[in-house]
Amino acid sequence: MNVGILTIGDELTSGMIQDTNSAYISAECNDERWRIAAMMSVGDDGRAIRGGLEYLIGLSDAVIVTGGLGPTADDKTTASIADAFDLGLYTDESVLNEIKARFERFRIKWTENNTKQAIFPDGAVVIDNPIGTAWGYSLKRNGKLIVVIPGVPAEVKRMFPESIIPLLRKEFKEPVRYSFKRRIKLFGIAEAKVDETVSEIDLDLPGISLGFYPRFPENHIVITVRGDDEETARRTIDLAQTRIVERLEKYVFGYDDETLESIIASMLMESGLTISVAESCTGGLITDRLTNVPGSSMFLDRGVVVYSNVSKTELLGVPMAILETFGAVSEETAVSMADGVRKSGKTDIGLAVTGIAGPTGGTEEKPVGTVYIALSDGGASVCRKYLFRWGRRRIKELTSQWALEILRRFLVERLRHD
Amino acid sequence: MNVGILTIGDELTSGMIQDTNSAYISAECNDERWRIAAMMSVGDDGRAIRGGLEYLIGLSDAVIVTGGLGPTADDKTTASIADAFDLGLYTDESVLNEIKARFERFRIKWTENNTKQAIFPDGAVVIDNPIGTAWGYSLKRNGKLIVVIPGVPAEVKRMFPESIIPLLRKEFKEPVRYSFKRRIKLFGIAEAKVDETVSEIDLDLPGISLGFYPRFPENHIVITVRGDDEETARRTIDLAQTRIVERLEKYVFGYDDETLESIIASMLMESGLTISVAESCTGGLITDRLTNVPGSSMFLDRGVVVYSNVSKTELLGVPMAILETFGAVSEETAVSMADGVRKSGKTDIGLAVTGIAGPTGGTEEKPVGTVYIALSDGGASVCRKYLFRWGRRRIKELTSQWALEILRRFLVERLRHD
Repeated sequence: MNVGILTIGDELTSGMIQDTNSAYISAECNDERWRIAAMMSVGDDGRAIRGGLEYLIGLSDAVIVTGGLGPTADDKTTASIADAFDLGLYTDESVLNEIKARFERFRIKWTENNTKQAIFPDGAVVIDNPIGTAWGYSLKRNGKLIVVIPGVPAEVKRMFPESIIPLLRKEFKEPVRYSFKRRIKLFGIAEAKVDETVSEIDLDLPGISLGFYPRFPENHIVITVRGDDEETARRTIDLAQTRIVERLEKYVFGYDDETLESIIASMLMESGLTISVAESCTGGLITDRLTNVPGSSMFLDRGVVVYSNVSKTELLGVPMAILETFGAVSEETAVSMADGVRKSGKTDIGLAVTGIAGPTGGTEEKPVGTVYIALSDGGASVCRKYLFRWGRRRIKELTSQWALEILRRFLVERLRHD
Repeated sequence: MNVGILTIGDELTSGMIQDTNSAYISAECNDERWRIAAMMSVGDDGRAIRGGLEYLIGLSDAVIVTGGLGPTADDKTTASIADAFDLGLYTDESVLNEIKARFERFRIKWTENNTKQAIFPDGAVVIDNPIGTAWGYSLKRNGKLIVVIPGVPAEVKRMFPESIIPLLRKEFKEPVRYSFKRRIKLFGIAEAKVDETVSEIDLDLPGISLGFYPRFPENHIVITVRGDDEETARRTIDLAQTRIVERLEKYVFGYDDETLESIIASMLMESGLTISVAESCTGGLITDRLTNVPGSSMFLDRGVVVYSNVSKTELLGVPMAILETFGAVSEETAVSMADGVRKSGKTDIGLAVTGIAGPTGGTEEKPVGTVYIALSDGGASVCRKYLFRWGRRRIKELTSQWALEILRRFLVERLRHD
């Protein structure tokens, strides 16, 4: 099946905001094995909307339209679509009543122009918008389906999988009653290597499709399995996951909506282990990420950003002799920082990074991007050295990602032995 | 003038990566007062490329094409364009030699398929790519201009203003020899209020155009002045800037490529003042942002993330009595944290935040989103209370932005009096 995407709004064609709906919808379609014929953005302009719609219908079995469904005069999508197909317009009274009820529930003042959101082209089948006041609708013309939904990204992300995908499957008689999706998240392996490894795995299973999404610094594999039997589809997706994870286990840190920090948080909360963090070159990014997880106060006692030698000594007890002999960016300093912050916070684990984020401060022996990451649990400490590239911010991001990954691998081992 | 944009690549239509070139090019065109007729993305497919190009040419005076210029078999842009206009292909020997020279300079191994990057449709005028090995080119057909450039965003951002805008101006005989652009960055004022205030300002100046770009949590105004006299254009843009800044001075924190943190860093470095930071709910985000600026070790001594009451007492000397009487989220605690971190770091300034990022931990009196921000310089301390919404990450971002803004306003006052 071929799908066209038309996103509408002056804010898109003037570069005011980035259109993210097209990429989102195309990824969803890709996972369904539907081909995107073309994606187009036009302004709030009747002629441009009609022209774009006609062009896309010529290429596609279904066209997904987003945006221009609001109550104001510059929202022209419905009128333009009616125009393009020579259709009249009608007001759906039950939609109108429901919109009014929602205004009351959300305590927003009703204004008469909102009536517009209950007006549809003749023949349209309305689609509820559970989190907004602009309804969507679908229209059939000459065997082609036009689906129109609001442009607010959160509403698209809710309505597309919940209503639009099932609608398209049914309309085009795809023999799919169930579809399951699993996102496998990897870090520490190059995109090309993921590709190569997966191509060697036997994944010739019924109803399966694979997508690869680089999401710097991570790589994601999305498995989709579709079929008319729920039990079989579930078993197939689990089997595919097992086969992929078997080969790439070391790099898999999580699934679906999990993040590296949420996985770490779960393991810490589950085990009751606590942590303190000492950062030099990352400047707070590691604790920022850990504290993005709700409930992080349960396992994080403190973080310190020790930019000066004095602060490393005062806050972490790093001996001045170590700083003078080995330098602030060294294995000895990193280990002493990790030990120091663990003791200062009286936590089970201390995590520390020290490095040169640049652009200045590098030497022949320790160029910009040199980073040491250390973890201490009171027993033997781990320390790894890295050389990162591509500028200050990237060096900070890669350092924080590797520090969290080292922590994750440590926790996996630790929980396995407990 | 009407412009069409065609971005090419399977990675776009499969949702693997987000197309950012269209938004960037449309914003640049908007600043030039060129209208975007439509923007389209298609995969690496000859028929789709030809169809999209023909559709966009029908609507536009010029079409900007990005992507599909690489050396591999799936890069089909040039062949498809030649096809669309029934043109032959030629190899440009001087481009070929220069590409080979670059491979040598960058120490990349030459492979024969790279010859493809020196092949152009008959009649094409080549456009140098100063930072890559895929050249661009322009073609004229029936009074319309087709401009083709590589899809790598960094290369687009370099080539578009440097080569493509001047080319389009010349081609369409726009009476513009000079054009200056200034981005005014505001924070702490709503988008609608910016709009309203600017509409009241006399900006009826020759060659001027204005763009408004919400960039959460900031709002940006872009002034573009175009004209055939350099001196007049420069004076006009300065005058427009003065008039806007007069009315919105309180909210303007920077211009062009400046960031809130780079402005603060400049003021700190200039004045020789030093700072330490204590964070609770932001979890390190404030120091992360400050340390994104190269050279931040010159003014930042330390940051502490004090998630527990114990750490607030141990690291900052916040009296347990204050924590028990007023709570960890209170004006008294914030001020004590700011004072404490300033003294501990022996710096001129202490900046502190404490709040409830949620989703849990709120009470009737102090709901989720309650935040106190304090600044201490050893004299009178400042403390402000906020109530932010929209989830944990947004609360962290708004808190860090307001903390930096309070610091900026303090430094502006301080440097004014020095």
